[in-house]
Amino acid sequence: MSAATAGSASDDPIAIICGAGALPFAVAESVMKRRRPVVLFALRGWTDPERVRAYPHYWAALGQFGWFCRMARTEGCREVVFIGSVARPRLWRMRPDATTLRLLPRVWRHYRGGDDYLLSGIGKIFEEHGFRLVGIPEIAPEILMPAGPLGRHRPSEQDERDIAKGLLLLSAMSPFDVGQAAVVADQRVLAIEAAEGTDGMLSRIARLRQDRKIEPGVGRGVLVKAAKRGQDRRLDLPSIGPQTIELSAKAGLAGIAVSTGSVILAEAQRLPQAADRACLFVVGMPEEPPEK
Amino acid sequence: MSAATAGSASDDPIAIICGAGALPFAVAESVMKRRRPVVLFALRGWTDPERVRAYPHYWAALGQFGWFCRMARTEGCREVVFIGSVARPRLWRMRPDATTLRLLPRVWRHYRGGDDYLLSGIGKIFEEHGFRLVGIPEIAPEILMPAGPLGRHRPSEQDERDIAKGLLLLSAMSPFDVGQAAVVADQRVLAIEAAEGTDGMLSRIARLRQDRKIEPGVGRGVLVKAAKRGQDRRLDLPSIGPQTIELSAKAGLAGIAVSTGSVILAEAQRLPQAADRACLFVVGMPEEPPEK
Repeated sequence: MSAATAGSASDDPIAIICGAGALPFAVAESVMKRRRPVVLFALRGWTDPERVRAYPHYWAALGQFGWFCRMARTEGCREVVFIGSVARPRLWRMRPDATTLRLLPRVWRHYRGGDDYLLSGIGKIFEEHGFRLVGIPEIAPEILMPAGPLGRHRPSEQDERDIAKGLLLLSAMSPFDVGQAAVVADQRVLAIEAAEGTDGMLSRIARLRQDRKIEPGVGRGVLVKAAKRGQDRRLDLPSIGPQTIELSAKAGLAGIAVSTGSVILAEAQRLPQAADRACLFVVGMPEEPPEK
Repeated sequence: MSAATAGSASDDPIAIICGAGALPFAVAESVMKRRRPVVLFALRGWTDPERVRAYPHYWAALGQFGWFCRMARTEGCREVVFIGSVARPRLWRMRPDATTLRLLPRVWRHYRGGDDYLLSGIGKIFEEHGFRLVGIPEIAPEILMPAGPLGRHRPSEQDERDIAKGLLLLSAMSPFDVGQAAVVADQRVLAIEAAEGTDGMLSRIARLRQDRKIEPGVGRGVLVKAAKRGQDRRLDLPSIGPQTIELSAKAGLAGIAVSTGSVILAEAQRLPQAADRACLFVVGMPEEPPEK
């Protein structure tokens, strides 16, 4: 077997467990372009039912882990990828099957920790059942943020300083399993993301500006976004998309800086145009911030 | 001259530059209880005009630094304290006098950094004009958070773990001149304060809970609040008051943990009762978080 295709050397179909949004389909397209088959496992309540029809797929409910294992094996899948957002599910909405019930005490323990802890615990369980968890960098690298600017705008020197401060801050918060994004303007940290998510944080900045609660004028400030250090890259990578650009513009920011190789681009081909239209820069930064 | 009075050894009147809220008057009362005279410098637009009448006072506009120096010297003040919130003022609303105009380039440079940088720069300017900046711990220690619980409720073991995580997080963010407060529930960081302020952050938690965007149930989670490491204790200490308790209750938290000796209590005597009524603990924690 040749390893000419980038990423996985396997020709088995890959099982794609699909959350909400457009990302699952971008991943499916990317995998299929490499002539590798896919089987989508759509999650009721999350996966887009219109779009999933275009692909070989099953509908599943959260908690049907035993059923998933049987179906995925029947389809010949040995590799599994998670993609698309699934809000931390409420456990009482799960419909656990027998296998899941046996695993519940373990999942519950992981559930009480941070997101990373939850996800790495789930990852281990998949592996113990004979599936290899693969990540987006491995199977669909073209939907990850590349180095350099996406559109025609570039960060100024002041923006570069704000970006450096933001990356250092995110890095310092990494051990606490929080903070994949922050907003820095004129060296002042205006917002740090936690449970509200990036969109929530950007809306807050827009509101604070409107209420004249923050000083730096419109067109100043950078959204800095990075994967957590040591985050399992096979699970829950952060993403940006056209909506991130739109909300950053509404928040009056100068641009968006994203660590390369670990942030997923939703609707990647639309982003440069969206950035230009919004007069924002969107730039990929190397993961190690410069020493300061 | 005896040094029997706690705090300053001076008998000169102390100049109290007053921001918004009740704190300036609590400080004035505390100083006067030690038989030391006060002169309040009320800032137009910030200081409560009703309450300031009870004290010897002048009205001033932001930016009248030369005028302040003359008046304070005339009154025999050699020590100055800042107290009460002043939102980062918009520079174009200042009415700078000649002395201030000369200092503006320096203030402007400091203004572009974080809050600490701004405040320590302003502190230095006062000292160069012959005033000693004093802090609340020195002149009114009884309005600082003491060790131990304020009311009858106590943190549980789970709460203690959340408090420890929150204190470590705030400590890690300290070098970035941000983050005097965070909310941690079941070891998960739900919110980190930046430009929105503590009240804004607590309202966000209440909203996220209402929208069922966060998992831990009502009665879980702790507001953790501490002064920044290395923060100039003479300037801009964080504070909590009855409103903090009320908003924490609305956010469904279990309680509030505050570092001792560096967080000011607004309406200190009302707090234990407010905590009991809201069924929250309010506890003072030693400043050094336990090693983990």
